[in-house]
Amino acid sequence: MASIKDVAELAGVSITTVSRVLNSRGYIGSETRQKVEKAMEQLDYHPNQIARALLKNQSYLIGVIVPDLSHPLFSELINWIEAYANERNYKILVCNSLQDSDKEANYISMLRQNRVDGIIMCSHSLEIESYLKVSMPIVSFDRIISSSISYVAGDNYKGGEIATKHLIENGCRNLLHISGPLKYDLLPNRRSDAFQLTCMKNNIQFSIIEGAHIKAAFQDNWDFIEQVISPQLENYDGVFCSNDIMAYTLYVYATRNGIKVPEQLKIIGYDYHSFTRLMQHPKLTTVRQPLDRIGKALCSALIDQIENKNPDFVNNTVIDVELIRGDTT
Amino acid sequence: MASIKDVAELAGVSITTVSRVLNSRGYIGSETRQKVEKAMEQLDYHPNQIARALLKNQSYLIGVIVPDLSHPLFSELINWIEAYANERNYKILVCNSLQDSDKEANYISMLRQNRVDGIIMCSHSLEIESYLKVSMPIVSFDRIISSSISYVAGDNYKGGEIATKHLIENGCRNLLHISGPLKYDLLPNRRSDAFQLTCMKNNIQFSIIEGAHIKAAFQDNWDFIEQVISPQLENYDGVFCSNDIMAYTLYVYATRNGIKVPEQLKIIGYDYHSFTRLMQHPKLTTVRQPLDRIGKALCSALIDQIENKNPDFVNNTVIDVELIRGDTT
Repeated sequence: MASIKDVAELAGVSITTVSRVLNSRGYIGSETRQKVEKAMEQLDYHPNQIARALLKNQSYLIGVIVPDLSHPLFSELINWIEAYANERNYKILVCNSLQDSDKEANYISMLRQNRVDGIIMCSHSLEIESYLKVSMPIVSFDRIISSSISYVAGDNYKGGEIATKHLIENGCRNLLHISGPLKYDLLPNRRSDAFQLTCMKNNIQFSIIEGAHIKAAFQDNWDFIEQVISPQLENYDGVFCSNDIMAYTLYVYATRNGIKVPEQLKIIGYDYHSFTRLMQHPKLTTVRQPLDRIGKALCSALIDQIENKNPDFVNNTVIDVELIRGDTT
Repeated sequence: MASIKDVAELAGVSITTVSRVLNSRGYIGSETRQKVEKAMEQLDYHPNQIARALLKNQSYLIGVIVPDLSHPLFSELINWIEAYANERNYKILVCNSLQDSDKEANYISMLRQNRVDGIIMCSHSLEIESYLKVSMPIVSFDRIISSSISYVAGDNYKGGEIATKHLIENGCRNLLHISGPLKYDLLPNRRSDAFQLTCMKNNIQFSIIEGAHIKAAFQDNWDFIEQVISPQLENYDGVFCSNDIMAYTLYVYATRNGIKVPEQLKIIGYDYHSFTRLMQHPKLTTVRQPLDRIGKALCSALIDQIENKNPDFVNNTVIDVELIRGDTT
């Protein structure tokens, strides 16, 4: 691989001059600049970013930790994070925590060893100690790690409220909410808070059942519904599911068991990720989280922190959500 | 952040000793090792992998270039690549080429600048010049870049053959194949070759229509079917689609237009990724590409090349595929 010395020799200039061209520093005549650029092209020279990172103490690398790379919510989010990071000249290192806090701690250590400039944390594991010890910019998705760490979230409270109101306005009087795992201190729990309060304000009977499932596998969701939800499903005329895959599975379960959706049971989901948008039967009624805007906000918040070199700057962002009307309500 | 000097001071040893512990080099007594390890833990010291990468000329970074991170095929593939890379202590930098060859060339340059140890190329763009110039290990997915670059692929010929035979065995006599974009020199084109030959051997009428769509968006596929396929759809009693999203969209199009699937029209797809596995209505008949094994093979082939330091070692891998019987045939 060509070195900076080779470039300098071919261009007939000093190494310092090549370095100045690379770093756009100091005065360089346009003729000299062209000679250097031509030599770099001829030699197919690529400046060593690792050496530059070491020198400048900035790697332009961002670590992104997610619970499941193949889940449609996270793959779409990563897609947008990558796009915006790339616009600002950052690269992303993706880490799949698989909900395992030991694996996650190892990833954090690896990211620190690789001197990433910051971390976007989209994980749902219980253990957050490791993040509190990290002395670099972090932004979290849908989670408050500490008051000194910025977060980006969809408006979970509003999402829970519009979903519940929609069911009530469409005539439901006995509501069930299948929540996310409430033991984790996650912002999506506010969907449950909103569900509960909206039911109480409207004198609606309700229950909340905790679903621990993040896995985007049909059978896992099916088994949960069969074992936990099905024995009491006849008590309800409306269900608000905290994610679309659960909502879809519930729809399939209900129709296979002779329950008409939406006539006898109304179902609303949450997310509106690529799976929900692709799937046409049924078109789910759901709450859209704008993953493009969330991805952009995560990137902006993190890179602004990195570039201001001020890790104490906290800037929480809550992104609006909207109701998507489908066939299941 | 603690430095190696801080660790040496706290442990009461020289920097060289700490370095020996880190690199497991030279004789170190167990007591000294414990003192150093304890000091690293107390100071929350993380060795600078960037400095080590520069020194050792190995970064333990792998670049992965895909056309669309949010596509269920590629998100699942990346999920497995990340898992196997992590097992062997490598990290992955993901790059979303969005089918744009300029963007892809920039990514390759960026990966070279960041001194990744190798590249996994899953892209479908026309331009492969940039890859030929790269003097580092590369493994490609479903594509022959050159005779000196290893590839991993599902058995595309067999996949095309079992799909076509399945349609014929189920009584189809006029077959259509909606292929991938044939202008790219991709291994999935062998699905079309197998389709064609199998039809000819069995005296079956057939046509091939090129679908240029990689986008996992329902509307794009719908528009293509409405404009290109629909005018001649009545000529066929069986369609082999080169991907599941096209097959699913065709199913929806047919049923909305009064064509009964599978009675009047049999449809078979390709991939069996997370979308297909989640979706229950219909259960698609399709060909499963084992993305776990493909991801593992891509990682193994690349890391073996990296660690043998022999970029000329070519090791192509073809992974078996299987028919998944669903409701659409």
